[in-house]
Amino acid sequence: MRKLVLGSMSALLIATSLQANAQPDPEEQIIFRKAGYSFMSWNMGKIKAMAIDGTMAWDPAQVQAAANSIAATANSGMGALFTPGTEKSIGDTKTNVRPEMFTDMEGVGKVAMAFSKAANELAEVAKTGDKAAIIKAFAATGDSCKGCHDKYREKM
Amino acid sequence: MRKLVLGSMSALLIATSLQANAQPDPEEQIIFRKAGYSFMSWNMGKIKAMAIDGTMAWDPAQVQAAANSIAATANSGMGALFTPGTEKSIGDTKTNVRPEMFTDMEGVGKVAMAFSKAANELAEVAKTGDKAAIIKAFAATGDSCKGCHDKYREKM
Repeated sequence: MRKLVLGSMSALLIATSLQANAQPDPEEQIIFRKAGYSFMSWNMGKIKAMAIDGTMAWDPAQVQAAANSIAATANSGMGALFTPGTEKSIGDTKTNVRPEMFTDMEGVGKVAMAFSKAANELAEVAKTGDKAAIIKAFAATGDSCKGCHDKYREKM
Repeated sequence: MRKLVLGSMSALLIATSLQANAQPDPEEQIIFRKAGYSFMSWNMGKIKAMAIDGTMAWDPAQVQAAANSIAATANSGMGALFTPGTEKSIGDTKTNVRPEMFTDMEGVGKVAMAFSKAANELAEVAKTGDKAAIIKAFAATGDSCKGCHDKYREKM
């Protein structure tokens, strides 16, 4: 791993560290993909708190912002963060990915497409502010997350 | 910190953990905000590699996806991840934020607005595929990152 420490370097410094090599090294890939999933989980949690649990005040603009962030992450090409060499934890950088993620290309394609479709639909529905429709699209997005976790992530 | 381990829980599990309390606890806030910055740095790095360094092939669709992800993160309301109690590292969850981030509200507002404006402009410009304009908007976004880092992040 180059000098990267999660979240502690500026984008400019990161960009500089990537100057000689466009593709993040395996440890960086694990860090970046976990960051993407973690940030999505925050946004999923907010939508759930607003739309389902009622533990946050209903705020259509915030739901939309959260849904946009999830969709943009889903569309960001995270597949590039699963190159060979990232199948296993690297030192303290842990991954819970299963080996099947790197061999079952057809299955991975299916769950990836399902997630992308669900996330983009959630972002579309979020524009309307229609709470019932948002709850439905949110549940479908959660199911699509689970579809991948069940097959390609070690049980916690 | 509830049972959260960075990137290792499903969105659904996270959402469940948030059921009793909409607002992530201080340690989770630090983890989530660092995840957001880290994921943005990956996307900034890709744009730099494509538009400036030429270490990744020029791909307007990928530039647009990366810029959308950065803008959606900028618009996601990350200010909610800087509540009192998150000024300092918590156990192994390190933060490099400076105390001024929690007292200089006017200054923080300025850098946050500047970043949001620059990130949204980058996303707009990325739609055009105009490389020269993208480079300019990318540089402005990098400057806006640096504007916050210089004032509110400990020197590395």
